[in-house]
Order: sequence, then C-alpha cells, then structure tokens
Amino acid sequence: MLTWSLYWTVRECLVTRKPIAVFDSGLGGLSVVRELRRSLSCEDIVYFGDTARVPYGIKSRRTVAKFALEDARFLLQFEPKLIVAACNTASALAMDELEEKLPVPVVGVVKPGARAAVQLADGAPVAVIGTEATISSGAYTAAIRTLSAQQEVIGQACPLFVPLVEEGRDSDDPIVKLTVETYLSSLREAGIHVIVLGCTHYPLLKEAIAEYLGPLVRIVESGRETAHAVREVLQRGENLCAEERTGTLQCHVSDNPTRFRRIGSRFLDEEIEHVELVEPEQYIASAASDRKEK
Amino acid sequence: MLTWSLYWTVRECLVTRKPIAVFDSGLGGLSVVRELRRSLSCEDIVYFGDTARVPYGIKSRRTVAKFALEDARFLLQFEPKLIVAACNTASALAMDELEEKLPVPVVGVVKPGARAAVQLADGAPVAVIGTEATISSGAYTAAIRTLSAQQEVIGQACPLFVPLVEEGRDSDDPIVKLTVETYLSSLREAGIHVIVLGCTHYPLLKEAIAEYLGPLVRIVESGRETAHAVREVLQRGENLCAEERTGTLQCHVSDNPTRFRRIGSRFLDEEIEHVELVEPEQYIASAASDRKEK
Repeated sequence: MLTWSLYWTVRECLVTRKPIAVFDSGLGGLSVVRELRRSLSCEDIVYFGDTARVPYGIKSRRTVAKFALEDARFLLQFEPKLIVAACNTASALAMDELEEKLPVPVVGVVKPGARAAVQLADGAPVAVIGTEATISSGAYTAAIRTLSAQQEVIGQACPLFVPLVEEGRDSDDPIVKLTVETYLSSLREAGIHVIVLGCTHYPLLKEAIAEYLGPLVRIVESGRETAHAVREVLQRGENLCAEERTGTLQCHVSDNPTRFRRIGSRFLDEEIEHVELVEPEQYIASAASDRKEK
Repeated sequence: MLTWSLYWTVRECLVTRKPIAVFDSGLGGLSVVRELRRSLSCEDIVYFGDTARVPYGIKSRRTVAKFALEDARFLLQFEPKLIVAACNTASALAMDELEEKLPVPVVGVVKPGARAAVQLADGAPVAVIGTEATISSGAYTAAIRTLSAQQEVIGQACPLFVPLVEEGRDSDDPIVKLTVETYLSSLREAGIHVIVLGCTHYPLLKEAIAEYLGPLVRIVESGRETAHAVREVLQRGENLCAEERTGTLQCHVSDNPTRFRRIGSRFLDEEIEHVELVEPEQYIASAASDRKEK
C-alpha cells in the first residue's frame, strides 16, 4: 500500500507536475492560455511569445516553420509534458515539422477547431477566418475535409483584425464594425452555419462578429477547442494534473515585455505578473542544429 | 590633359559608380527608392527588405537597432557609397548607432522630413504621423526642435495605415476614409499647417489624407525629402553619378520574394524584375561581431 502511494507521489512529481509549454508568434496565444487555465487550472504553463519577429501571418511557410521550431525548442529546456502551438499560422504551416522534430506531444489549434466546426456544421457551409498565410495554406479546409469529405468550406483572410485588436479597439468601435461587415458580408450571403475564428486575436472581436452574423451562426474558438484537445491528450497518457492548486504561469518573450504585459492582459483576462526577456542566442541558437531530437 | 581625363574616368568607376544601398523593415522603403530613382535616375540601387522580421514599428528600441544594424551590414558587401535607412522606425530609433558603426555615410528619413516641415510650418503646429514606435520615440519632435526650438509638434500614431496599404486598400476605400478621419480629427481641430508622413507606407494614402485635411494643409513625404538629402550628401562628396544612363535596381529580402514583388510594385510604381531571397546566416551572422567597422 505504501509502495503504491509512493509510486503515485513520485509519478506526480516526475510527470504530471511537468508544465504545459505554449508558444505563439506574439501575444495572441494568451487567449489559448486563458482557456487552458480555465479548464486545466492546476497545470503549470510556460509561454514563449516571439514578439521580436511577430507577426507570422504574412510570412512564408519556410520561415514560419523555422521560427516555430525555434520557439518550440526554446521551450524544451523547461521539460514540458506537452507543447501547444497556439499560433494558428504556425499550426497551419508547420504542424508536420513540429510533430516530426519534437520529442514531446504537440497540439496545434487547427485540428481542434476543425473538429468542432464539423460537429456543428449540419450540412451547411463552414467559414474559416484567419491571417493571409493561414487561409492561403488551406490547412483548415484540409483538416475539415479529413473529417467530412464533402463539407463545403469558405476561407476568408481578415488581415486588419490583428492590428485592430492590438490597438485596443473592441467590438463597439466603428472601424471594427465596418471591417467586420466588409470581410464577412459574402460569408453571411453564403448562408454559413458555423464560423471558425482561426486566429488567436479574433475572440476579442467575437461580439462584433456575432452581432453581424446573427444568432443562428455558431462561433468556434480554436483556442477553447484546443484546451479540450490538450485535456484529452494528457488524460490518455495519464499525465493530467489532478491536484487542488492553481497552476503557475511563466511568460517569456523575444522583445518588448512591457508591451506584452500591457496588451497581453486583455487576452489572458488577468494581469501578467512577470515577463522574462529572452536573448536571440537563447532561441535562435537552440534551433541552429538541425538534428532530429526524437 | 590626358591624365586629368583618366583621373575622372577612374574616379567615375571607383566612386560615383558605386551603388546607393537602401534598407527597410520590409517593402515600404520602395516608396523611398521610387523617389531616388526619379531624382537620381542614373544611380544604381541595392535594396534589402527584412521581410522575415517585418514590421519594426511595434518593437523595442534595442531590437530595432539590432535589426537595422544587421540590415545595413548585409548591404556593406555591395560596397555602397551611401546607405539610406528608408525605414522611419529605424531612422527614429537607431540613427545614432548606425552613424557610429557604419563605415559609409548614412541618411535617414527623419531629419529630411523634419527640415521640410519646419520650412513650411510658418508658426502653426506641425503634425507627424507614424508607427507606434516612431511616434513614441519622439524622434521627429526632437529633430524639428533642433531646427526651430519653439515649434509646436503633435505626434499621432496610425498603426492601421500599414496593414490597410499592404492589403491593397487605397484612398477611396471606406475603411481607409473612416480610419483617416478617426486618427486625424484632433490634428485638423488643432489647426495644423503641415503634416509629415512619417512612415514609408503612408504616401499611398496621401489622397485620403489630403482630402480630409483640406487644401491648406501641406503634406511632407519623408521619402521625397530624403532623396533631396541624398543628392546633397553625394554632391558635397563629389560622388554624384552624372552619366546618361538608367541605374539598376537589385532587391534582396529575408522572406517571401513573391509577396514583395506583388505588393512592392505599387510602392515603387514600376514592376520589380528580380528579387533575391537572403538566408538568415547572411544577415544575422554578419552582425554577430560587435566590432566597430569604422
């Protein structure tokens, strides 16, 4: 009996107490962290935001894959039990490479968002909105069609949404309302039932989007679905933390911690206590070797 | 007589034929190149756009200075006779460091813009619009006050203008019109006589800005003023090309040459023939050593 209890205590310390690592091109991934902290409150989280090279959404597949791998490898030093690619662009463009090259399970935001969309679609077209790179990659469409081969999917890039959110504009803002109308009018006309918010910034404009599309259109937040997917993966591996405690959050950025704290708290929905500035050598060098770490 | 003529021929080959190097965080600097090609048509130009790390306008002084120095040092391999920091953010945040560490004359866009603004102000307040980083640096205000100590200057960050332009929206676009009105209404009320377009993207929205502010407000394009400043520096050093030929343009980018060509041609006002993709080692490594090259 004692041995068994000792086994579980040691296991608790060795595996389940390891943190979940989350990376993003910048601060948007904090909206995914918010969902993780809500549904997996006792987990410790280590976050890396690549604010020196943000945004990824206008960059090439090759560059996004390189940056994403560097971000994830930086986080390996914290010995995470799982890595979340909270950035939609990175999930859309670099998931295969991340899964192949990282020694721990990786959860992206595209597949969970796609799964929820298919469950809600009910035969009507699904819309996916995201950055230029996410939409033109066709990753959401591919993920949705894997689950439901005939599903109609309409992609729409909404490049102004990120700067609108980062500037602090919310759903009541006239520029936001006009921009939402401009991007989404063709989706409304197409009679969509479901829209996937395929960018971590977009939940902050959810009200304006919901108001414009009307109450019959269901909104899928990829971040929220990702938190469910993380729980499933951890549960399957018996790595879920089950203690009665509030997990810690450690944030690291490659530039401008002050801006990260100021704007990021709106994404996280709580104050960000402390942010560590990471030097280029710490994340660029860590990816210099191209060896497979698996 | 022959010796004298030989001297000038050799000099022509050795100095005046050297290219002008221009760098920018991305493709915006092509609006400065356009002005250079108009007023200094026989000069060869080598351009580097750091499209892998664009934009600089939301980043810290430290990071912008590091990136700007890497960009400029990459261009040294072409043995330029002069380097233009076409990026307003880099000119605002890193000019001292560039001037100190580079072995050739450097012309930024802030001082030329400031000089033109002072000449036109006529006692009324001057407005400067630019990125978050340019405006909060206060660099334009400082440059203007050096020339005219009592000059009133009003800075206004316009973070949506860059993504609006990059998305291909022009002055007739309803979102552009509403955004212009939102950012500039307080400047109009303040009775400004002059507005400085302190970002290389903004000339593409000039019509909307002019229409909103009315015909009495003079618009200063920092890029155009910079071309005049480059001419003066080259003339002073007797390095101006005086041949009857059309100079070449060589473009290099750190990411996404296709997007650069597609969007960049609107800034340049001509097709971009060929763009070279530069590997990270070529520009990041070149700045690794911190030695003074002067």
